[in-house]
Amino acid sequence: MSNIRITAFKWVPPFAQGLVRDLRVRWALEEAGLPYTENLLGPGEQNSAAHRAVQPFGQVPVYEEDGLTLFESGSILIHIGEKSEVLLPRDAAKRARAFTWMFAALNSVEPHVQNLTTIDLFFPNEEWAKLRRPAAEKMALGRLNAIAASLEARDYLEGEFTAGDLLMISVLRNLRHTTLVKDIPVLAAYQARGEARPAFARALAAQLAHFERNQPIAA
Amino acid sequence: MSNIRITAFKWVPPFAQGLVRDLRVRWALEEAGLPYTENLLGPGEQNSAAHRAVQPFGQVPVYEEDGLTLFESGSILIHIGEKSEVLLPRDAAKRARAFTWMFAALNSVEPHVQNLTTIDLFFPNEEWAKLRRPAAEKMALGRLNAIAASLEARDYLEGEFTAGDLLMISVLRNLRHTTLVKDIPVLAAYQARGEARPAFARALAAQLAHFERNQPIAA
Repeated sequence: MSNIRITAFKWVPPFAQGLVRDLRVRWALEEAGLPYTENLLGPGEQNSAAHRAVQPFGQVPVYEEDGLTLFESGSILIHIGEKSEVLLPRDAAKRARAFTWMFAALNSVEPHVQNLTTIDLFFPNEEWAKLRRPAAEKMALGRLNAIAASLEARDYLEGEFTAGDLLMISVLRNLRHTTLVKDIPVLAAYQARGEARPAFARALAAQLAHFERNQPIAA
Repeated sequence: MSNIRITAFKWVPPFAQGLVRDLRVRWALEEAGLPYTENLLGPGEQNSAAHRAVQPFGQVPVYEEDGLTLFESGSILIHIGEKSEVLLPRDAAKRARAFTWMFAALNSVEPHVQNLTTIDLFFPNEEWAKLRRPAAEKMALGRLNAIAASLEARDYLEGEFTAGDLLMISVLRNLRHTTLVKDIPVLAAYQARGEARPAFARALAAQLAHFERNQPIAA
């Protein structure tokens, strides 16, 4: 019996399927070999007072385990990483470097990726978005090139896979509607390497299964 | 003798003074009572190959200690926090909650604050910025209200000060050119509480001292 429960959505529109952030936590749990149960939010529930009490921003995932409640996939990954060397090396220096890449993914890369996806997926026809897009793409591309340069000839950012790669690859996946990653072969290969991990495949299948099952019926 | 060295800038324009991210690391080191030396980058040095080799995005801070090199203030704070209970509680559950707020500050709040400051400080007269500003402010404000609600009547997010507060308060400071924080009394009081800490005052003075000393001479 597992005492771990994660909160995710029953269904999201196709543009978000395979990208919702509970995927990052599912992937980490699969890498660590830890079973979990799910708490699935239906329409409107993400902004309920009950959900906001555990996730102030009305988002997913939430992670619950024996009375401990966490949000923010980064911090949940550290918590899971403490249970599994696959995610966080035991060596203090290597562990610190893994943390560095976790924060790089979430604070230095994702915000720029998110600005571009916000333009492309939510406001493609707005005047501000058309005017801003070239600079937003340039900012995101600058970060992608920096990551590619950091990888050099290694399989993962520090050689061995860590939670830093899990997050970085998850962030890269958010650009699937563009050719930005594909146009940088070292980065495309890095993303494919992460996605080829059996733990990733299991996590993705688990997220998508709910979306298929709970698809709204067309009127 | 300290073996800790941080990388910062010799000088930045007034709009950035007191906000550059080495402040977060200086503050953490002061909270932990750890002395450090500085490596100050002059004009153009931030994009040198030598600096990019240790900081892929050409930013500051970099943290060096006995052969270990870290970037990303979030990960540096975890490393410093492992040396000091003032930043990270020893209790595993409390520590995990502190991590949650660290990531909340950097991944859920700062990106929206940064989008607003980018508009206001870098592109105030551009058409896209004028069109986008109301929605950008609304997004940032939503996050601020969520943090205010999470604080409730507590002094800090989990009661006692942690690295999560250090980062959250540092992010709030980036809105000093607006009244957004001031307009939410519980948040303004929270920021003031953090800034009243002697460690913060020492860190701020240390950053500003260089800017004063290295001010460019007007032509």
